[in-house]
Amino acid sequence: MEARMGVKALAFDVFGTVVDWRGSVAREAAALAAQLGIQTDPLAFADAWRAGYAPAMDRVRKGELPWMHIDALHRMILDSIAEQFGFGGLSEAQRQHLNTVWHRLTPWPDAVAGLTRLKQQFTITTLSNGNFSLLTAMAKNAGLPWDCIVSAELFQHYKPDPETYQGVARLLNLPTSQMMLCASHPSDLRAARAQGMKTAYVMRPFEFGEHVPLPKVEPGEFDCVAQDFVDLARQLDA
Amino acid sequence: MEARMGVKALAFDVFGTVVDWRGSVAREAAALAAQLGIQTDPLAFADAWRAGYAPAMDRVRKGELPWMHIDALHRMILDSIAEQFGFGGLSEAQRQHLNTVWHRLTPWPDAVAGLTRLKQQFTITTLSNGNFSLLTAMAKNAGLPWDCIVSAELFQHYKPDPETYQGVARLLNLPTSQMMLCASHPSDLRAARAQGMKTAYVMRPFEFGEHVPLPKVEPGEFDCVAQDFVDLARQLDA
Repeated sequence: MEARMGVKALAFDVFGTVVDWRGSVAREAAALAAQLGIQTDPLAFADAWRAGYAPAMDRVRKGELPWMHIDALHRMILDSIAEQFGFGGLSEAQRQHLNTVWHRLTPWPDAVAGLTRLKQQFTITTLSNGNFSLLTAMAKNAGLPWDCIVSAELFQHYKPDPETYQGVARLLNLPTSQMMLCASHPSDLRAARAQGMKTAYVMRPFEFGEHVPLPKVEPGEFDCVAQDFVDLARQLDA
Repeated sequence: MEARMGVKALAFDVFGTVVDWRGSVAREAAALAAQLGIQTDPLAFADAWRAGYAPAMDRVRKGELPWMHIDALHRMILDSIAEQFGFGGLSEAQRQHLNTVWHRLTPWPDAVAGLTRLKQQFTITTLSNGNFSLLTAMAKNAGLPWDCIVSAELFQHYKPDPETYQGVARLLNLPTSQMMLCASHPSDLRAARAQGMKTAYVMRPFEFGEHVPLPKVEPGEFDCVAQDFVDLARQLDA
């Protein structure tokens, strides 16, 4: 099989695939706690915040909540866990700033180098549930060299709804078969494949911490299995 | 007045403001004509193609045509003028390729340097009637360092409809008052100002050729009047 499989554009999941949300949120929470003399468990705080994310999106997907973007969902979750992790006394300004930690997440060490290489051969875009302004700010903060920003917000549908995969292909004016979703989450990849996209599973063994096993995938289930973005670039002849 | 006026993000008109559509289309048409032994007037061809653009968009804006993106409108116009300019005998593949000349437009000489400077201090985005894939391809071809791509296509409304100016502000999660539209066309700027945006008029004296006078603007009508993007950066302390 030709290495590039006719693929013209790569769409990337972002949280976990491109950036280390857990380490980034924990570092900023720890620094804030130290500054304010608060006792907290920063990694548990990051995990609790993230754990609220999929259920909150599902409430939007099922119509229990109106369309809300991720900044708003993050804030809703933060408000519900702040007390438990010692952050109940934050001022409104401090809470707003903490909520935008998701705009300041740190890329995995290979991410910028790998994307820079892939960008020479492919159009590279986000396809994330993060809102458009969050993804734009994150790219600016982290130096992520996207050709364009595509967010679930543009379709008012969250992944894994089919509208997101079809939507990014429509915006790039490509059939889904000429696009590849690159993600560390098999469920996202399976939903993309069901819409005709090629798939690259990128392993991120530390997304959820050091002792959490990688998700189970079937041999041959995805078109590429890569250790990181530089490995993905190598496999795609980029 | 503080130089930046509280502005956080700059939205740029593209055709004419950032790129020299007339020179670029004429150069490519001339090269194609020479290659195929066709007699044509390449500047008149570029002008005729562009002249079909506003009326075609207006038909969409008025609902006489369903939503069509600019690639499709450009093709409709190209097909209507091809014969007249000697391009009637182009194959389908040649016609498709010529139609994407709008993805390959050349920036004005100051554009990349000015945008690179402005990007240090502001979020910089397109706000163009060009479709999303066209703007993405153009940025890649021309090295335009946008933070994100915003197109009328995302709103299914063409400028100067208010939905476009409100839409870009909503996506960037800013009030329109914290955004500035940068454009060489006073009508675009006036429509943006009516939605609360700040405005920068950038002079592009050669957009329509050397002997076409600049449009008339009132003194003080816009927040900035700039010679080019480097001058704009200087005025905005970037």
